[in-house]
Amino acid sequence: MKAEETSEHARAIRAGDRRALARAITLVESTRDDHRAASEALLAALRTDAEGTVRLGISGAPGVGKSTFIEAFGLHAVDRGRRLAVLAVDPSSVRSGGAILGDKTRMVRLSRHDRAFVRPSPSAGTLGGVARRTREAVLLCEAAGYDTVIVETVGAGQSEIAVRDLVDVVLLLVAPGAGDELQGIKRGIVETADLVVVNKTDGALTAAAGQTRAQFQSALHLLRPPTPGWTPRVLGCSALERRGMDELWEAVEAFVEAVGDGMARRRTAQAVAWMWAEVRESLDSRLRAAPAVSARLADIERRVAGGCIAPGTAARDLVEAFLADRRTYADTRGQPKGDEER
Amino acid sequence: MKAEETSEHARAIRAGDRRALARAITLVESTRDDHRAASEALLAALRTDAEGTVRLGISGAPGVGKSTFIEAFGLHAVDRGRRLAVLAVDPSSVRSGGAILGDKTRMVRLSRHDRAFVRPSPSAGTLGGVARRTREAVLLCEAAGYDTVIVETVGAGQSEIAVRDLVDVVLLLVAPGAGDELQGIKRGIVETADLVVVNKTDGALTAAAGQTRAQFQSALHLLRPPTPGWTPRVLGCSALERRGMDELWEAVEAFVEAVGDGMARRRTAQAVAWMWAEVRESLDSRLRAAPAVSARLADIERRVAGGCIAPGTAARDLVEAFLADRRTYADTRGQPKGDEER
Repeated sequence: MKAEETSEHARAIRAGDRRALARAITLVESTRDDHRAASEALLAALRTDAEGTVRLGISGAPGVGKSTFIEAFGLHAVDRGRRLAVLAVDPSSVRSGGAILGDKTRMVRLSRHDRAFVRPSPSAGTLGGVARRTREAVLLCEAAGYDTVIVETVGAGQSEIAVRDLVDVVLLLVAPGAGDELQGIKRGIVETADLVVVNKTDGALTAAAGQTRAQFQSALHLLRPPTPGWTPRVLGCSALERRGMDELWEAVEAFVEAVGDGMARRRTAQAVAWMWAEVRESLDSRLRAAPAVSARLADIERRVAGGCIAPGTAARDLVEAFLADRRTYADTRGQPKGDEER
Repeated sequence: MKAEETSEHARAIRAGDRRALARAITLVESTRDDHRAASEALLAALRTDAEGTVRLGISGAPGVGKSTFIEAFGLHAVDRGRRLAVLAVDPSSVRSGGAILGDKTRMVRLSRHDRAFVRPSPSAGTLGGVARRTREAVLLCEAAGYDTVIVETVGAGQSEIAVRDLVDVVLLLVAPGAGDELQGIKRGIVETADLVVVNKTDGALTAAAGQTRAQFQSALHLLRPPTPGWTPRVLGCSALERRGMDELWEAVEAFVEAVGDGMARRRTAQAVAWMWAEVRESLDSRLRAAPAVSARLADIERRVAGGCIAPGTAARDLVEAFLADRRTYADTRGQPKGDEER
């Protein structure tokens, strides 16, 4: 992509052209080398001050009603003037054309609203890759004028933990009864939450929802809060009946108020941590792709697993083999599907 | 160290010579290149089947009475025939000569027992380094005939989480009242626990201890258990009055029984994960030490923090600079304090 094209694309995004934004997100999601270079140029051209925006992570196990919740929660926000973008980190999603059908149809009313932008992200590649591309998509949405960005995680493994590192505030959505039995809440997730929201506080579940709130309240006392200056809160809502949304947005605003300058400091720390995460991921994928390593890897892993070789010795061998052979990365860099783009 | 010395050293360790074991642990803790090579040779010579041993992690915030607990818990075990080694991961400890005075004096009776071996580990270097050296120390203790190894963490940052990856069973020690207010329990720790033990279930604290047990019981319901096949248990004890120790060791035995083959599978997975952790750590330290990187690192981090350069672009620049300059690692490898030993 030429420089003029980049600045034209950047102008269109800033002007609020949704198709330009969607195209830019597709670009940052691409693993092609030339796309990667183009998206870096685009991000550099768009680099703006994102002060005043709110980045909100929403996680929750399947079945808690996340889509219904985000539609109700999001419509409430756009009706009151927010410009809202919704991005999904969904490692299980299947692409159909350029859009994910299931996701698009999930939030029908929200995605049609002119102050909302709903975009599921595909999840090709590693978790780190997903997180990076989502991060860059957040920046693109902010450059397009969305003051509130929701990053939704669809509960696969560690994605919620990665999301903690790219948002300001984390909302964990749970269903009544979560406290009575294991509800599939991933390890580490409860501790990343600034707000725990018990959905389905309606009808026959109202009493159970109250108990669940009390249980989470008690559990949160045992955990160190993830955000300095903010004590996690437990709230109830009914996405189905669209109740409790006011209180939730008030809690988000109270969070922003309470954390104050801490939000900017966290974003700075996140950017540096993000750089290092990318360095690690890049080195890891280069090492695995290096011929001197990939040829021996299965055998070495088997010997480590079988106790025939100490992990430390095996690691040293792999690193030496990787670095000793100049060809390994020189070759890799020339390939279109090389690790540089990951 | 020559091959004969290595096999002589290995023989002495296998024969139960405590000084030989202590010397071997000092060797694996060393960051010197020649020591590193010698310790790898020693570990290779000692490689034995550790089947039937139990590796127990004990974590807990300062002030919960961890030393008193380990002494009571350990004496109970050795009195009933176990051979017990205690290793400490203590990033805050200060070395005095070869031993940590505070640690040695903490467990006076246990460290004098002829079926016990108490050894604090120093914590120079990164957490990963600490974890690796502790891991290797565990293997040395097992080779010396200790059938039970306790790895104690002294609650600094993420060390407890790393410990989860080098033991079979994790015991979290808490004090009464832990549920009433934040007790300094680190994020992620509660979720790694197979057993939660409320210490100080004695005297005036008995009632409070009962409440704390109930609160942890309720909190654990919200979390996914860390070990397949085992539902975490909450128990009480009084280390001061040496009560509850029987029940604790019975719970450890019940864990081993319940998890069955899963223990061996976990150890295999831990060994492979350990290898990859070492690969990452080694590449990270080599990159940071590379002249082409270290000269620019402070500037790049500042520009990323200030938003002048995208983290992804910065990461790519660093990795390219590292790999492009063959000198960077060639030089590093020749240095006595190079990153190879880290």
